[in-house]
Amino acid sequence: MATDQAQSDASEGDTYDQFEARVRRISNVGNAAGILRWDQEVVMPDEGTPARAQQLSTLSSLSHELLTADETGALLDELESSDLEGDRAAVVREVRRQYDRETSVPQDLVEEISATASNAHPKWKQAKADDDFEHFAPTLEQLVDLKREYAEHIDPDADPYAVLFADYEPYIDLETAERVLERLREELVPLIDAIDDSDADLATDAFAGAFDDDDQEALARDVLDSLGYDWDRGRLDTAPHPFSSGTQFDARVTTRFEEDDLLGSITSTIHEFGHANYTLGLPDEGYGTPLGEARDLSVHESQSRLWENHVGRSRPFWEHFLPIARERFPELADVTPAEAYEAANQVHDDNLIRVEADELTYHLHIVIRFEIERDLIRGDLAVEDVPDVWNDKYEEYLGVRPETDAEGCLQDIHWSHGDFGYFSTYSLGSVLAAQLYAAAEADRGAFDDEIREGEFDELNGWLRENVHQHGKRYVTPDLIERATDEELTADHFLEYVTSKYGELYDLEDY
Amino acid sequence: MATDQAQSDASEGDTYDQFEARVRRISNVGNAAGILRWDQEVVMPDEGTPARAQQLSTLSSLSHELLTADETGALLDELESSDLEGDRAAVVREVRRQYDRETSVPQDLVEEISATASNAHPKWKQAKADDDFEHFAPTLEQLVDLKREYAEHIDPDADPYAVLFADYEPYIDLETAERVLERLREELVPLIDAIDDSDADLATDAFAGAFDDDDQEALARDVLDSLGYDWDRGRLDTAPHPFSSGTQFDARVTTRFEEDDLLGSITSTIHEFGHANYTLGLPDEGYGTPLGEARDLSVHESQSRLWENHVGRSRPFWEHFLPIARERFPELADVTPAEAYEAANQVHDDNLIRVEADELTYHLHIVIRFEIERDLIRGDLAVEDVPDVWNDKYEEYLGVRPETDAEGCLQDIHWSHGDFGYFSTYSLGSVLAAQLYAAAEADRGAFDDEIREGEFDELNGWLRENVHQHGKRYVTPDLIERATDEELTADHFLEYVTSKYGELYDLEDY
Repeated sequence: MATDQAQSDASEGDTYDQFEARVRRISNVGNAAGILRWDQEVVMPDEGTPARAQQLSTLSSLSHELLTADETGALLDELESSDLEGDRAAVVREVRRQYDRETSVPQDLVEEISATASNAHPKWKQAKADDDFEHFAPTLEQLVDLKREYAEHIDPDADPYAVLFADYEPYIDLETAERVLERLREELVPLIDAIDDSDADLATDAFAGAFDDDDQEALARDVLDSLGYDWDRGRLDTAPHPFSSGTQFDARVTTRFEEDDLLGSITSTIHEFGHANYTLGLPDEGYGTPLGEARDLSVHESQSRLWENHVGRSRPFWEHFLPIARERFPELADVTPAEAYEAANQVHDDNLIRVEADELTYHLHIVIRFEIERDLIRGDLAVEDVPDVWNDKYEEYLGVRPETDAEGCLQDIHWSHGDFGYFSTYSLGSVLAAQLYAAAEADRGAFDDEIREGEFDELNGWLRENVHQHGKRYVTPDLIERATDEELTADHFLEYVTSKYGELYDLEDY
Repeated sequence: MATDQAQSDASEGDTYDQFEARVRRISNVGNAAGILRWDQEVVMPDEGTPARAQQLSTLSSLSHELLTADETGALLDELESSDLEGDRAAVVREVRRQYDRETSVPQDLVEEISATASNAHPKWKQAKADDDFEHFAPTLEQLVDLKREYAEHIDPDADPYAVLFADYEPYIDLETAERVLERLREELVPLIDAIDDSDADLATDAFAGAFDDDDQEALARDVLDSLGYDWDRGRLDTAPHPFSSGTQFDARVTTRFEEDDLLGSITSTIHEFGHANYTLGLPDEGYGTPLGEARDLSVHESQSRLWENHVGRSRPFWEHFLPIARERFPELADVTPAEAYEAANQVHDDNLIRVEADELTYHLHIVIRFEIERDLIRGDLAVEDVPDVWNDKYEEYLGVRPETDAEGCLQDIHWSHGDFGYFSTYSLGSVLAAQLYAAAEADRGAFDDEIREGEFDELNGWLRENVHQHGKRYVTPDLIERATDEELTADHFLEYVTSKYGELYDLEDY
């Protein structure tokens, strides 16, 4: 018996090794594609696109073929029938999920969606430029239909929007997301109204002026230095749409500079730092498997928002950072930390554009998109009705009505990519950021004094220990529960914003 | 019959399409790897290596598997049994050659060579640092043995050195290379002796001084502008060992700057421009197949050397370019074009180091390496005897004897990579550059006046038409014959150098 067991263990070991080698290949192809995309956004010459598109398409199809090969399925079956535990079981769980999804959708449909989206992108761009929703509507309808078909292949019995949502957030139920978003809507609408009615006079022009690009870049490097970014495993570049990407060995940040928006480049750099810092906290030895990969979009966004908002928009941060900023920009000599703090936290209740929104109104932009795309995908809303519904919701939730579709339902690129189900992860990320920050402070005490001294090791240490080092070891609800002793809740976010903005805007009932 | 023929053509078409799709995939994987290598040399953070090594290894094995798959062999067999002609036949020829080589070498041996070379590199580095050949000798012997074994798998009846040479230069016979190199040795040794004896006093310090890096970079951009580099399909960066890489859509140049070597950065930039300019001349529609890929190392090197030497070290070039250089570096105000020309063509007959050699002595450095590695691989020379033979040859050919192995047989990295057979393509490239330049002038008239005006379109047009646009359509001897009406010959190179240096050094018999 003992011998049989040993043999069975050895054979399980061989199978697992084969399986892991396969998983590493897939991961390496994906990471190579990541470098090609970074290159395309950051350094590729303008006319490189035709070749790059073919290179990326080849890598993507190779990765798909490796994942969906019969051999992968056989290895998964075999491993699942043995008694895997712990890390190995987690790797099998993650690959199984991906395998099931990719094998259930016919490759023809995937290619049709991809081709339709390629075609949709210029149509959307034109429609936005011309403020002409009709020009985009037929393609949008096609994409909605194709994505419903896609969802049906994955699970014909499920709510198709829940299936699409799971592409971005596989382990959080759509019901949880809906519950959180509804709560945000219920609580934020009156809070923003109260701010709108407030007479408080914030120092909103602390960063008014024209700021040189090179100096802004030097300051962005100061920000990253100050937060403890590891330059031996990263770099800073500019990109039209800032992003971060990479692996634990090489996690790069991009940002952008606009002459009249110094504050925007600072907060955007801190945001991208948060993403890269998560990636850098993944264990080296897990590289190439889910154990060395970040959890999904909401958790990733929790890291960028924690640093951007809970650190970068805090009063102590500006006490620490303003003197550094003044060295690059002597014109800030008369700005006080309190003024910088107020400028970084101004609420724009009349803003129509999501990407320009503040920490509060942002979530209403998300709620509106979430409700609309959910209804579209469920078949409860016709494409032609999107502009009116969009505008009505803006009026209802934000008290402002877009005058054009260009600044209304055509503003975001996502739907033209066929991305439905993505937006809510931004808000879930904010909510989780507040929950994690509260848990970290409960564990380690308030970080204010450290932030004021420019010390971030204690906070980052907690994040490394409770979030980063686990990679995809735990499914998201378990990761959250282990880190915070609670399930995902909007409580901490709402507590944070009511306390912060109640004080900033001198609100009676907050 | 007519119908049968039509069906057979249609089926040949389908087979060819399948084949081409396969070839494009392989090419895209290779080009993706090229981007990853560029990234590694130019922008990757220091600690990114472990992940990058895995990514490159995965892409390399995927490419190998796609190429050597049974399906590739079956498609090749089927296409070869049909009556392919022209471009399609050329694509099949090139892929067949690669397929035969890669399928004939066991993958275990390829991996053993790769692992041994990885291990050899630090040993070589240490040996060079310590001037201790013994430290490197056992690994060198291993690599020699492994590469002999490798050659035997490809063709057990052939001279193993000819087989290795064909890895870099598949269509030029080793006999041709030997003939050319022997001729260079015979003619250059007395020419260099005559220069050594000459009393001519060249203006060798025209570029003495300290030159700022940023200004050098600006001047390197001026050089590329001036030569007509297409910035929409390229970029300039710095790298410790300058190279160029990419495709016809995106061919990048790197260079380096040393404070005391302005001339070096200019000539090195022109050299890399020549490589990139060849790549940019490949036809767009051929991307992804051999028709859109450059011919092999000698032809590539002919392009870099044509621009570096025949253009960049010419008197008219300095008449054109010196005023541009003076704008960046006012300290060059008193330098004349004649002095710049002399400085750019100084012969260092006492130099021991290949990468610091001039246009003449360079080839004797190559001849020595060629003779030694050929004898090593053929088993006619023992590894332990390499240092003595090396030093004897330097004394005989160049009249200078290395005092250490660090500045002798340990100076170059190539053998530590297991690269045997590579060096001679540098000299073949120079020889071919002169042959092409002579043919272009025979066709279009001397380019001196145009170069003096900074006009390079006529020369480049000839190269595009006669070399670049063909990609791998013709095997190298055919390409050379079509472009120059001759087979590869050292005549033009020798005519060029005897005329140029005879005049520069005032040599009686030249």
